[in-house]
Amino acid sequence: MSSGIDLSEKLSTFSEHWSPRTVAQFNNCDVMVVKVQGEFVWHKHDDTDDFFLVLKGTLDIQLRDRTITLGPGQMYVVPRGVEHRPVAREEVHVLLIEPTGTPNTGDAATAAPRRTA
Amino acid sequence: MSSGIDLSEKLSTFSEHWSPRTVAQFNNCDVMVVKVQGEFVWHKHDDTDDFFLVLKGTLDIQLRDRTITLGPGQMYVVPRGVEHRPVAREEVHVLLIEPTGTPNTGDAATAAPRRTA
Repeated sequence: MSSGIDLSEKLSTFSEHWSPRTVAQFNNCDVMVVKVQGEFVWHKHDDTDDFFLVLKGTLDIQLRDRTITLGPGQMYVVPRGVEHRPVAREEVHVLLIEPTGTPNTGDAATAAPRRTA
Repeated sequence: MSSGIDLSEKLSTFSEHWSPRTVAQFNNCDVMVVKVQGEFVWHKHDDTDDFFLVLKGTLDIQLRDRTITLGPGQMYVVPRGVEHRPVAREEVHVLLIEPTGTPNTGDAATAAPRRTA
């Protein structure tokens, strides 16, 4: 019998915020866990939708016209081209899925490096 | 303030087993929740990896050479072309992601219809 990928265990291996760690790959996408706290930058991805599933804590995804609030077990997909800013008042753990190589800020020049956990 | 997609709430809207409900779309993939119990059929998907994240219960994903056991917060990606059979001794709730239109049995003739929740 083998184990799968335990998301909590992967999250326990690092403490940096806004630094996604790839835990699996799926159809040329990276499945990632990330710890976030504070405000990220406003950004958009022109070529990919942006998948968020909150595992722990409460995440606000600010859009220009409203804010989506996600608790544990709640998810949202920001459509491609839509400006958004994740904001976490306290530390939040999130599952992200993005095509491999997608810059997290929407801009390769400012993006966090892609690492594995 | 708006809400995201609450996976538990979506799961509460139906009781059938092995009948995935689409809750969101992401880059031409369906994000689905499903309730499963008992043994599914052995199958494979030649053109897509198969993403499983267990939300509740314990799921065995039988492969031909071993079994992957997943509890809540654990995930596994079955690579394309790999035969597998999900088995749930008790009811299990799972998040699935597959390209839109993928037959759940790997064969359109025997697949469950794709519905939304």
